[in-house]
Amino acid sequence: MPSQEAIAQTVNSYLELVAAGKTDEILNLYAADATVEDPIGSDVRRGHDAIREFYTGFQDLKKDTELVELRVGGSEAAYLWHLTLDTGDSRSRISPISHMKFDEDAKITSMRAFWSPADVKVL
Amino acid sequence: MPSQEAIAQTVNSYLELVAAGKTDEILNLYAADATVEDPIGSDVRRGHDAIREFYTGFQDLKKDTELVELRVGGSEAAYLWHLTLDTGDSRSRISPISHMKFDEDAKITSMRAFWSPADVKVL
Repeated sequence: MPSQEAIAQTVNSYLELVAAGKTDEILNLYAADATVEDPIGSDVRRGHDAIREFYTGFQDLKKDTELVELRVGGSEAAYLWHLTLDTGDSRSRISPISHMKFDEDAKITSMRAFWSPADVKVL
Repeated sequence: MPSQEAIAQTVNSYLELVAAGKTDEILNLYAADATVEDPIGSDVRRGHDAIREFYTGFQDLKKDTELVELRVGGSEAAYLWHLTLDTGDSRSRISPISHMKFDEDAKITSMRAFWSPADVKVL
C-alpha cells in the first residue's frame, strides 16, 4: 500500500499539473491501465490514449485549481477542490469531489469526479 | 436509476437520523445486503445486523451533523459533512468525505467514509 504522504503528493501534483495544462506530466501520474470517469455517469476512459484525449481537450484553457479538503484512507483518496476557469470575458468555478485509487507506487489507477453542469458558478 | 432529488433526500435524512441516534430508522435507509466501510480501511460490514452494530455503538452520544457539500452523479453521491461530538466536557469535530451508492429506490447499497483519527479537531 502506498503511504498517505505519497498519495497526498500525487493529488497535489495532479492539481498543479491540471492548472498548468501539462497533459504529458498528468499522464505520468496515471498507471498504464488506469480509468477515468469524469463526470460520474459519462463513459469510462481506460488507458493513457483515452485519458490523454480527455486532458488535451481543456489543457489550453486558462485555469486555476485549489485543494479544499483531502481525505486519504487505505490506497484511496477523496477530495473537494476548486477548478476556476478564466475565458477572458468571464470566470466560472466548478468544485468537484473526486475519488482516486492508487497502486503501490502511488500512481492513479482510477479517477472519478463528482460534479454536474448545474454546479458551475459564474464568479 | 433513482432521481438526483431522491438521492439527496436519502443523504439528508441519513445525516438527520445519525445526529438523532435513530438506528432503526437509519437501517431503513439501507438496502438489505448493503455494505458499510467506515472509516476506509476498516473491515467491511455487510447486511443490517452488522450495520446495526456499527450505529448502535455511538447512537447515544450527543452529536450534530451538517451537510457541507453534496455532489450527486448517476446512482451515487459524494459529500463533505461535519460530525460534531459533545461529551459535556469537550466538543470535537470530524469532517468526513462520504461516498454512497443507491438502488432504484434510493436505498443505500454502499457507504464508505473517508476520515482518520488525525482529522479530529477539538473545538
